[in-house]
Amino acid sequence: MKLVLDAMGGDFAPEETVAGAVDYARDFQHTVFLVGDETAIRQELEKYDTSGLDLPIVHAPDAVGMDEQPAMAVRRKKNNPMVVGMKLVREGHADGFCSVGNTGAVLTAGHMVFRRMRGVHRAVLTVPFPNTKGFHVCGDVGANTDCKPEWLVQWAHMLAVYAKPLLGIEDPRVAFLANGEESGKGNQLIKTAQVLMAQRNHLNYIGVVEPKEMMAGQADVVVTDGFTGNIVVKQSEAVANFILQTLKEELMARPRSKVGAALARPAFHAAIERLSNKEHAAGLLLGLNGLVTVAHGRSKRESIYYALKTTGQMIEADVLEKTRHKIETLLHVQSPYREKAL
Amino acid sequence: MKLVLDAMGGDFAPEETVAGAVDYARDFQHTVFLVGDETAIRQELEKYDTSGLDLPIVHAPDAVGMDEQPAMAVRRKKNNPMVVGMKLVREGHADGFCSVGNTGAVLTAGHMVFRRMRGVHRAVLTVPFPNTKGFHVCGDVGANTDCKPEWLVQWAHMLAVYAKPLLGIEDPRVAFLANGEESGKGNQLIKTAQVLMAQRNHLNYIGVVEPKEMMAGQADVVVTDGFTGNIVVKQSEAVANFILQTLKEELMARPRSKVGAALARPAFHAAIERLSNKEHAAGLLLGLNGLVTVAHGRSKRESIYYALKTTGQMIEADVLEKTRHKIETLLHVQSPYREKAL
Repeated sequence: MKLVLDAMGGDFAPEETVAGAVDYARDFQHTVFLVGDETAIRQELEKYDTSGLDLPIVHAPDAVGMDEQPAMAVRRKKNNPMVVGMKLVREGHADGFCSVGNTGAVLTAGHMVFRRMRGVHRAVLTVPFPNTKGFHVCGDVGANTDCKPEWLVQWAHMLAVYAKPLLGIEDPRVAFLANGEESGKGNQLIKTAQVLMAQRNHLNYIGVVEPKEMMAGQADVVVTDGFTGNIVVKQSEAVANFILQTLKEELMARPRSKVGAALARPAFHAAIERLSNKEHAAGLLLGLNGLVTVAHGRSKRESIYYALKTTGQMIEADVLEKTRHKIETLLHVQSPYREKAL
Repeated sequence: MKLVLDAMGGDFAPEETVAGAVDYARDFQHTVFLVGDETAIRQELEKYDTSGLDLPIVHAPDAVGMDEQPAMAVRRKKNNPMVVGMKLVREGHADGFCSVGNTGAVLTAGHMVFRRMRGVHRAVLTVPFPNTKGFHVCGDVGANTDCKPEWLVQWAHMLAVYAKPLLGIEDPRVAFLANGEESGKGNQLIKTAQVLMAQRNHLNYIGVVEPKEMMAGQADVVVTDGFTGNIVVKQSEAVANFILQTLKEELMARPRSKVGAALARPAFHAAIERLSNKEHAAGLLLGLNGLVTVAHGRSKRESIYYALKTTGQMIEADVLEKTRHKIETLLHVQSPYREKAL
């Protein structure tokens, strides 16, 4: 199997990206193309014993500066690591692309290089999200701010295809995110999407969930528009930081508590580990003619490793072909309703 | 000053509602009408020394059962505590109404009894929200799922009026909630609202904030549609519970950590206290011809006390008249733009 990594992406490139790729290549014996500034990548690679590993460097010198609008820069600088890396996949040299960092740039480059899959209304950005039972996948989390009900119905089917190998479940429970748990809840978008889903779905569709149920793990796939989804992800992160910071402040303000906190440190770390979602660090950009995973811009060595692992899993599970098939079935079956639906 | 409390509202009525009212009446020497089942309320009152306190009971026997759709029940049962209590305010016997619990019922009863303020597009539900710097107010958090940009602009002005006395700040910073911090971010609703606000506002308007900035306390008033706002509030609650539960599980799983947790308990409690937002427990339903505060259905004695305190503060600050005035100014000033705007 052959993967491509944007070695220059994210806040800690190329140190952490290269380190993660070395770890992954060693454990899985897959090829990982490292795309970016050749000299910088080579310098990093020399820190490790890479004998027996296949880590070819592909030079892509056009760095996207911090002061540039990333989506614009990707369009203008054709030799940037994202576009060059994705082309390796498009031309059959590799099976999937793992990007790190700026979502806007990934979206632009992905659409430019791979184009949308036939029949897919819009590509959807998904992430795995921890809950009290384990994980669910949530999408769209930021690719599309203003959505149509029809798109959400398609995404439900696409996310279900992806959730199967990712969460290792046969028939994922699929729901829309709403402001209440009763059927019929939601804004007009979600209400109409519910009606369309009831008419035609090939899913284990369970209706709507509100955040409480979502965080209790009552659905495996939670579908929402990209504006709401993005805010939900960001708000969760912000609330988590706020709570942990508040706890830390209160613990440090009391001598006895400080001692307690020191004793409790391993438990704290374990909890933060569970919350940090490291093993499910990478999201997926679904609906393009190429497999694209998206790791967080703050990803370090271990998260890069797991992002590559997710990429490999998705390739192995043939998620792209299965999505294509699902969309074709859906389009075929739904055709008599389509006019009415849209 | 005279307040009205729905003594039968919420999960712990009438025990906790009456207890909170007694505490409040004792501290502030205000009249609190207790509306609900006379016998039940009297029984609770007898538990306390209420000499010198003015706590008149107003009999409203039509309880809203757990199995009824609350908004429907409020309409059908005219002698329910919410409608009877609000009428006391409408008819000038009291200055403000404090409801506990079901938001749908409060919305229905509020609109039925008070009607919308002249010129107000839609009433808005607001809540104070803790952040790392203190508090901000957020609205709409659930009264309106599908909104127009024009409504959000009005709410921004209404929420600013209310934030002033509540947060004790002269010129609150007002922002829209978006999926990014750059101006122009947002879905179509938020983008258009930004354009309208730039054309005409009488506020300390700072543009858009994303969740991270919101939780860092960079705005005092955060305006959003009721679908997004409701999900943000619920997601925050769900994430907080998830984190605290995860921490607890990990602490209990290790003997040394258990000891640590015991030592750290006061700090934990202080943190949860800060997060639980007790002193700012009550939201406001703004835009009606009557002051209505909304306490959480899970409110106990102390939260009821603080909800009544908020109600009293809002009456004292004459928030209703000031809102009326602000809306009139806004309507007057905006009139040349109105056709274009809507």
